[in-house]
Amino acid sequence: MGISHTLAPELAVTRWFGADEGLTLESLRGRVVVLEAFQMLCPGCVTHGLPQAQRVHDTFRDDVVVLGLHTVFEHHEAMTPVSLEAFLSEYRITFPVGVDRHEPNDPMPVTMRRYVMRGTPTMIVVDRMGMVRHHAFGQQGDLELGATIAQLVSEPAPPESHPITEIAHEADCDAQGCAVPEQGATP
Amino acid sequence: MGISHTLAPELAVTRWFGADEGLTLESLRGRVVVLEAFQMLCPGCVTHGLPQAQRVHDTFRDDVVVLGLHTVFEHHEAMTPVSLEAFLSEYRITFPVGVDRHEPNDPMPVTMRRYVMRGTPTMIVVDRMGMVRHHAFGQQGDLELGATIAQLVSEPAPPESHPITEIAHEADCDAQGCAVPEQGATP
Amino acid sequence: MGISHTLAPELAVTRWFGADEGLTLESLRGRVVVLEAFQMLCPGCVTHGLPQAQRVHDTFRDDVVVLGLHTVFEHHEAMTPVSLEAFLSEYRITFPVGVDRHEPNDPMPVTMRRYVMRGTPTMIVVDRMGMVRHHAFGQQGDLELGATIAQLVSEPAPPESHPITEIAHEADCDAQGCAVPEQGATP
Amino acid sequence: MGISHTLAPELAVTRWFGADEGLTLESLRGRVVVLEAFQMLCPGCVTHGLPQAQRVHDTFRDDVVVLGLHTVFEHHEAMTPVSLEAFLSEYRITFPVGVDRHEPNDPMPVTMRRYVMRGTPTMIVVDRMGMVRHHAFGQQGDLELGATIAQLVSEPAPPESHPITEIAHEADCDAQGCAVPEQGATP
Repeated sequence: MGISHTLAPELAVTRWFGADEGLTLESLRGRVVVLEAFQMLCPGCVTHGLPQAQRVHDTFRDDVVVLGLHTVFEHHEAMTPVSLEAFLSEYRITFPVGVDRHEPNDPMPVTMRRYVMRGTPTMIVVDRMGMVRHHAFGQQGDLELGATIAQLVSEPAPPESHPITEIAHEADCDAQGCAVPEQGATP
Repeated sequence: MGISHTLAPELAVTRWFGADEGLTLESLRGRVVVLEAFQMLCPGCVTHGLPQAQRVHDTFRDDVVVLGLHTVFEHHEAMTPVSLEAFLSEYRITFPVGVDRHEPNDPMPVTMRRYVMRGTPTMIVVDRMGMVRHHAFGQQGDLELGATIAQLVSEPAPPESHPITEIAHEADCDAQGCAVPEQGATP
Repeated sequence: MGISHTLAPELAVTRWFGADEGLTLESLRGRVVVLEAFQMLCPGCVTHGLPQAQRVHDTFRDDVVVLGLHTVFEHHEAMTPVSLEAFLSEYRITFPVGVDRHEPNDPMPVTMRRYVMRGTPTMIVVDRMGMVRHHAFGQQGDLELGATIAQLVSEPAPPESHPITEIAHEADCDAQGCAVPEQGATP
Repeated sequence: MGISHTLAPELAVTRWFGADEGLTLESLRGRVVVLEAFQMLCPGCVTHGLPQAQRVHDTFRDDVVVLGLHTVFEHHEAMTPVSLEAFLSEYRITFPVGVDRHEPNDPMPVTMRRYVMRGTPTMIVVDRMGMVRHHAFGQQGDLELGATIAQLVSEPAPPESHPITEIAHEADCDAQGCAVPEQGATP
């Protein structure tokens, strides 16, 4: 379950497939957002995580925004954006997918670190207020996930007059230490 | 989808497995009830309907009451209560299952007729007020079902001071005519 | 693996579905015979054993005779021939199925005892000479099974002038003791 | 089914993973060889073809040589040997895999062309004499495949004193024309 009920850190994406550049979580405030973090060569992502995210996209079409996030923390040369683009085409992923940004000398990408993810697949659900309400690593059942999403969809959106500013996520995250999980991550 | 947003007719059960005799829908008023109508020799029930009902039972343990209903409308001699009891044991069904009552000269059982079911498996979800809110014949996805149930669980229960009486379902049902569906039903 | 490379005991069948009464293993001498022993309320039989036997029937159509055998050793009242007939119809089993015979006061049926089966599903493969060449309890892979059957199909049939007589299987079986397996079998 | 009962053209491999460089079909003469042609981003290969090839490898361990062949005919930049190596590691492929060679200005690789493959996955089975005996594009059942392999395994190996030489496959292939299949192949 990891962190939850904290303000969702912003995404650090270098490139979007299927969405305009500049897509941010903040711009989606007021919507329920399902974030599927995956690696294209992770078998559990290909078999379970991505098909489930696609089902969420197909089932909750108007009520939920599904975003993929390519969080490569191993085999970096094998999973470049060029390979990812072909993968998304071959596997017919129809929701937007962003490439998580890397900093020099850090095998783990920035957004993955901000969310303290333990590996892939990880699904994170953000409510209309921008809070992380669900954070699951590995497999999870559709029934429970459907119930979680429905609960968040039923909650009211924030008033438009309430801009959420000064989100300084990285600082927060640094303050917590954001220690790298033990998962094998190599440069 | 069949009937919905109508008051759920009472069950006509001759025998319960896994529950005390006398269990009624009315006694469950205030709870969300998932009713799984099946036949033990219906392949779609064994493969899809009953495993899904069992997952609902396991996932929503405290929030939802799952009830099975053995609605035999064909091969009556092959699916007696004696056979059903062994079936429930072998397939490890852990929620209560009632045997739908038959009237003389009618291959379709009473509760199945009251709910105007088209066949098996049929899943019906009744809200805390006793209203039918979901009525699905055949296969349905877990994501959507989980969302439906969560919505009903989140709704408030009726005040205890409001007893629902005089439900005269059979009369209502008779008044509507309750024509037998075209599904092949033989004595 | 159980017994193998012994002469296959004759079947003790009280009734055939999908074949004329009087069908015997001996009458099939010269053919490869795949015998699927099952119980209609055994989940492993319904999920794995019977679909695999049906695939064998569909794949090796002319080369192999597939026979089902209903070997009820528990819940006898729940799995009568009347129930079996409806089951075979609902599950669309297209190969012949025989009902294994019971002796008084013995929960385990006669053929099941002759073959020293440990439970259901059990698949037995008999070669053209009438010898048991494969005896598997539980699940088995299609690749290996396909290879086993192909090997037996490729072997020559016995000369027609060589009638196999005096098979006295039950005596043989008695001589070996044929102790009842520990599997829970109740009258 | 494509070509069959023709002498199997030699492989044109630029690099092997899991085998020494220089592995050739000719060096395997006398063995049954199962060749699984795939692309790492082809969903049917990942879901069906490669798991089946792995099962063949695990089931017929001593009797059959399973070889993978990475026949990239689309998205070439997305499926480089660097990506393939990570893929093989993540998906735990334990049989040798070769990279099919490309000629300049031809999107289809050389071995794929020699065998007149229609796409991926394609499974080809070569007998002990070096003849193509099975050539299947798309999905195929394990029972039938197991039977095919068993048949070839049971056939005698060629006498060692009979070296097969001068196999000029490419010339043969050129002579036949080897027209490029209509499958969409882009540079």
